[in-house]
Amino acid sequence: MAEFLPEPRPDEMDLLMVLSALADPHRLRIALALAKAPDAVLPCTAFELPVTKATRTHHFRILREAGVIRQYDHGNGRSNQLRLADLRQRFPGILTTLLAG
Amino acid sequence: MAEFLPEPRPDEMDLLMVLSALADPHRLRIALALAKAPDAVLPCTAFELPVTKATRTHHFRILREAGVIRQYDHGNGRSNQLRLADLRQRFPGILTTLLAG
Repeated sequence: MAEFLPEPRPDEMDLLMVLSALADPHRLRIALALAKAPDAVLPCTAFELPVTKATRTHHFRILREAGVIRQYDHGNGRSNQLRLADLRQRFPGILTTLLAG
Repeated sequence: MAEFLPEPRPDEMDLLMVLSALADPHRLRIALALAKAPDAVLPCTAFELPVTKATRTHHFRILREAGVIRQYDHGNGRSNQLRLADLRQRFPGILTTLLAG
């Protein structure tokens, strides 16, 4: 059974952490892809990032710890989903900004 | 007479550059202060930043080059204003996000 990995509650999310998480070309690409398909739950391997597996794992972790994405651990891999409702509640406007970029 | 310093046009603004400009505690503090008083034109010295003058100049330059602020050069100093209309046009939602943070 898939398990959630630890993530901040909406009231624990910090604007500077979210901005820092998004201020990287690979992480912004991941967030944009998820923002364009907000109901999707996608495995890390679905994102064609030109980085090592360890670096890819790192980028997803930064996004999760900032509260941008939720990660499910399947044992043999992780899948990812945008925290749409939480982001909208905590930082209204941020998805509009991302999708306008 | 005060002169504008070079800045990107709205269509030249880049989301990653804007996020990177804001993803720093000092620069976010400057942007938030200006976002809370969007009509204000404030000298660099109005922001109490615990950094050297050169570092302060650097932070304002990063914000200007990303398109977040407009800078006026008075010869003996610079003043700063949020590019409210341009930000709203190019990245709708971003001010709402900042002020919710």
